[in-house]
Amino acid sequence: MLSASSNEITGWSVNDPFWNRFRECVVREGIPYQWAALNDALPEDTEPSHCLRNFRIAAGKEQGTHQGFVFQDSDLYKWLEGVAYSLRWHPDPQLEALADSAIEEIRDAQQPDGYLNTYYTINGLDKRWTNLQDHHELYCAGHLIEAAVAYYQATGKRMLLDIALRFVEHISTVLGPEPGKIHAYPGHPVIEMALVRLYEVTKDERHLQLSGYFIDQRGQAPLYFQEEAQRGGWTNYWSGGPLGWRYYQAQEPVREQADAVGHAVRAVYLYSGMADVARETEDSSLAEACRRLWKSITGKRMYITGAIGSSEYGEAFTFDYDLPNDTIYGETCASIGLVFFARRMLGLEKRGEYADVMERALYNGVISGMQLDGKRFFYVNPLEVDPEACRYDYNKRHVKAERQKWFGCACCPPNIIRLLTSLEDYVCTAAEDTLYMHLYMGGEVHSGPLSLRTETDYPWSGNVKMTVLEDAAEGAVLALRIPGWCRSWTLQVNGEEIHAQPSDGYVYLKRGWQQGDQISLNLDMPVRMVYANPAVREDAGKAALMRGPLVYCLEEADNGADLHALRHAPAIRAEAVFETLGTATEHVTEQAGGIVALYTDGLREDRDAWGTELYAEKVPEDQAVRLRWIPYYAWANRGSGEMTVWVRYR
Amino acid sequence: MLSASSNEITGWSVNDPFWNRFRECVVREGIPYQWAALNDALPEDTEPSHCLRNFRIAAGKEQGTHQGFVFQDSDLYKWLEGVAYSLRWHPDPQLEALADSAIEEIRDAQQPDGYLNTYYTINGLDKRWTNLQDHHELYCAGHLIEAAVAYYQATGKRMLLDIALRFVEHISTVLGPEPGKIHAYPGHPVIEMALVRLYEVTKDERHLQLSGYFIDQRGQAPLYFQEEAQRGGWTNYWSGGPLGWRYYQAQEPVREQADAVGHAVRAVYLYSGMADVARETEDSSLAEACRRLWKSITGKRMYITGAIGSSEYGEAFTFDYDLPNDTIYGETCASIGLVFFARRMLGLEKRGEYADVMERALYNGVISGMQLDGKRFFYVNPLEVDPEACRYDYNKRHVKAERQKWFGCACCPPNIIRLLTSLEDYVCTAAEDTLYMHLYMGGEVHSGPLSLRTETDYPWSGNVKMTVLEDAAEGAVLALRIPGWCRSWTLQVNGEEIHAQPSDGYVYLKRGWQQGDQISLNLDMPVRMVYANPAVREDAGKAALMRGPLVYCLEEADNGADLHALRHAPAIRAEAVFETLGTATEHVTEQAGGIVALYTDGLREDRDAWGTELYAEKVPEDQAVRLRWIPYYAWANRGSGEMTVWVRYR
Repeated sequence: MLSASSNEITGWSVNDPFWNRFRECVVREGIPYQWAALNDALPEDTEPSHCLRNFRIAAGKEQGTHQGFVFQDSDLYKWLEGVAYSLRWHPDPQLEALADSAIEEIRDAQQPDGYLNTYYTINGLDKRWTNLQDHHELYCAGHLIEAAVAYYQATGKRMLLDIALRFVEHISTVLGPEPGKIHAYPGHPVIEMALVRLYEVTKDERHLQLSGYFIDQRGQAPLYFQEEAQRGGWTNYWSGGPLGWRYYQAQEPVREQADAVGHAVRAVYLYSGMADVARETEDSSLAEACRRLWKSITGKRMYITGAIGSSEYGEAFTFDYDLPNDTIYGETCASIGLVFFARRMLGLEKRGEYADVMERALYNGVISGMQLDGKRFFYVNPLEVDPEACRYDYNKRHVKAERQKWFGCACCPPNIIRLLTSLEDYVCTAAEDTLYMHLYMGGEVHSGPLSLRTETDYPWSGNVKMTVLEDAAEGAVLALRIPGWCRSWTLQVNGEEIHAQPSDGYVYLKRGWQQGDQISLNLDMPVRMVYANPAVREDAGKAALMRGPLVYCLEEADNGADLHALRHAPAIRAEAVFETLGTATEHVTEQAGGIVALYTDGLREDRDAWGTELYAEKVPEDQAVRLRWIPYYAWANRGSGEMTVWVRYR
Repeated sequence: MLSASSNEITGWSVNDPFWNRFRECVVREGIPYQWAALNDALPEDTEPSHCLRNFRIAAGKEQGTHQGFVFQDSDLYKWLEGVAYSLRWHPDPQLEALADSAIEEIRDAQQPDGYLNTYYTINGLDKRWTNLQDHHELYCAGHLIEAAVAYYQATGKRMLLDIALRFVEHISTVLGPEPGKIHAYPGHPVIEMALVRLYEVTKDERHLQLSGYFIDQRGQAPLYFQEEAQRGGWTNYWSGGPLGWRYYQAQEPVREQADAVGHAVRAVYLYSGMADVARETEDSSLAEACRRLWKSITGKRMYITGAIGSSEYGEAFTFDYDLPNDTIYGETCASIGLVFFARRMLGLEKRGEYADVMERALYNGVISGMQLDGKRFFYVNPLEVDPEACRYDYNKRHVKAERQKWFGCACCPPNIIRLLTSLEDYVCTAAEDTLYMHLYMGGEVHSGPLSLRTETDYPWSGNVKMTVLEDAAEGAVLALRIPGWCRSWTLQVNGEEIHAQPSDGYVYLKRGWQQGDQISLNLDMPVRMVYANPAVREDAGKAALMRGPLVYCLEEADNGADLHALRHAPAIRAEAVFETLGTATEHVTEQAGGIVALYTDGLREDRDAWGTELYAEKVPEDQAVRLRWIPYYAWANRGSGEMTVWVRYR
């Protein structure tokens, strides 16, 4: 007996000018491109993936060795998950047939006992489950489960779901609390949240329990990874360094963890799973741990763009308020994981701060990861870039001033794809009688307490028009999020002004809703100067510009080189103009559509007037300049150049 | 026929309250400590050097393997060089006997053919001269020569000089332009300047020619290091990275090099040798290359402290105006090498800018390398430190907030020792009838065109009193450097005001000098706010404080944590107070003697008043504070804490 979907998520169908553009890119460019990548059908200057070949070799249908990363299988699963989501709103029989054929490849590679991992199937099944720390078997299993649930929900087809269920059965015989089983947990989380999704469909308590087991076993003494390394005769790369077992969030049991630490993607994937289990099991101490880790990230370790992971070393969190803008890691996947975590915290409790961060990451640090034409991708999303430094400063070698075509470790592009194709799952949720609107984007919902259509040109304006599509049951409540960034707003229902105070970030409208009711929410969107906590060394004396949910940046293309020599004028006279992004790369610009650019008054310290001295007793002279700011997500679409988010204000 | 010393350098005897303290430290602590280190007689928690043991094993007097770096021999040579200098002004028969015994150990390890290198003697002479790129045979030879010349000049004893001469004879049979010889040059320069010193003593033109050969062969195509690597079957670590052959300054012939690049110590050692050869051979194109490289360093790639080497990767220069304060390498040895280069540029031409940089490095980036009690040392001399970042930020792992006892790669401590013991060679030079005073420190000179005594409490004040000690020959000129930092000064001879304009940084006083003539130079030393060229990203919006030649810094011990939250008030009301350094580490403080501390008005962005938000639309509130600044060289003598040189001024 399978349930159709999470009881929390409402089937919003997205139809939004801002997001349609991104989503069309993904369908037109991303999914086919990725399919070609998985099949090594890209031009020769691209690193081959070998992903599908691995499956065929594991199935005995081809000869060869396993190539690519140990987690290469997950690329196919992520692609399938994205395809599944896209089929919900963009039916495509050809694509579905392709996906079905890929699923058959997976089926053929599954072992009789349910085991499924091409790396070990090709290299020797006797070695499986011997390196849980680094070899990603459970990580791949997690992505398989996510894809399986998504594909089942989208198409009603069970083949992938059955594959996943057989693998989970196998896993349950190998890992778990019972004597004789391996008392371990994955080096890279994801299976925790995947198993809860599986449980939501199967209602099989064992799936929820296994997730809970992985979560609570993590970090227990004696440390499994340490024992495993001793057995394997290897030395863990991280344990001797500054990160230690924090790299894996395994330094202590998760309920005792106070700070978000280690590899940022693993961290937010883990915390997402924890929030899922806390919700499903009503486990208040686990929920409390989630709140603590949420606060650690969003209060002390998150960039203004929703990027996380301050250091390339370990792709990891570092320490409180350490947020370097130029040596940042800020992996696209980590911001995506933060969106996952935020949505799950909303599942625990409806507080606007969760949706605020979800929105912050989505509109900034996530979509900055993709070129506007959907063809190139960032792993690393810096807030300050000097292309010369990327070339010559070894500490910035991971930072690129231009997006790359594909990656040997191709985690980010498919992750963007699966998030963008599933935006419907983030817009609103239903909890009993209440429909919560978390994000404002065009589209409609026909299930849950209230059927509703939204029309808006958000994020370019804050005008959101909602229409009730059907008479609602008595007691239906519409909860509208008032974003944390919004200082002034008006709300009308059928033309009548509503004066309400938001509670925890939401205004609750309870009334007899009838078909045709008009709700008009107007969120003021002035240009805002935003400052960082004085504890943040790297942003001291600097301010960023935001408008609505968007963080803005300066690019060399608009403002010349030496962006560090620019600063905000004492009075900035801001102007917001809807216009095209700019010129340099025509094709990309076309895709960008219009953006709201900002113009403000700035000052430039004059390098020519200064002369040639390296140090001198003279304050640099100022030139008045008009600065052009573009949305951060749109940077690096016009060639290589400097970029900065934070600009001095004194 | 051996000449006594360079014809440029005048035998100044230092007797100066500021420098005596450092030099006494070196004699009391540094030289004995280093001797113990070379003999593995330090406490067990210190990394053993194995240096003397290597010599005994190479001589067949002990059994064992070579341990330590391939350049471990050079530590003993550098120690001997420092001892030699110290014996010139601090006779110590016991120390001299110790040095003589060490020289005998060296003699015993020399091969019948003159070859001398314990690494290859122990590991197989058949492999010698096969890895000039990285195995430091010529580097060790260079330091041997430097020690030999110094020891001969200090004591008149020839044993070490003869050892060096035999080795040079051997080298000449192996390397050189003639057919059948290896057409190569050292991976790590130093022998270039060493051979010129040897030439100054031997007047053997072949020594000068060999130096010139090494200089001009460097970077010639086909690249020797590439051929050598092919032959050896290894891949050069640097050549594939962003530095390439620039790491070795071998990317092109030196006369074509425009920018200071690669490993900073190697660079300035090479340039020093180039300047030496240019001077001795009156080679104007080589001199022009030196000027170009000088300008590259001092105009675009040097920190305000005279530190050089912006990147830990390659311990290297990076690109123009790239001067990060917190991820800097700034090796003590590199600043010492810059002092070498500066002195040699003064040998080419008397321009105050060379002495300015020599002084800048000496009073700041060099002596910051040593704890005030002479017992601990910095390799890396940052301009901004947060101890938490050093622990958790992998990019700053090379930066220490406290000096270390000794190093496995012990290049810096002995380098400081040999510089501090030979300060007499940097104070003044004689050129024909003119005595040039480059640095102001107490002491006297009795040879050259003018006999003179200086008394001063420089750098605490700019009052310099000079007394002529003997009637001088007609036409004798006294050239006094007016430091580049000095905006206002007065000069009196026998009480009579002299109004003169400096020419290229020197005021030339030509008169009949008689015994007892009094020269009084008063260099105004106000507190100066110094700004960096607007091209320097890392110092944008910041100012440093200087007084006289000293760069100042803020320490957490005086100003609390979160130094980045501090800035200069619009009007700083500076006060300079001669006082003790402070409290924390009593023993060190005692050694420090008095310092001039600066007090200025500052503002602190109030972290408590801000609250807990990570980002908000509010300018942080300011608290007025009084800042205490100490000389940069004296930082990190009171425990671990934050430090910064550059502070925001707006």
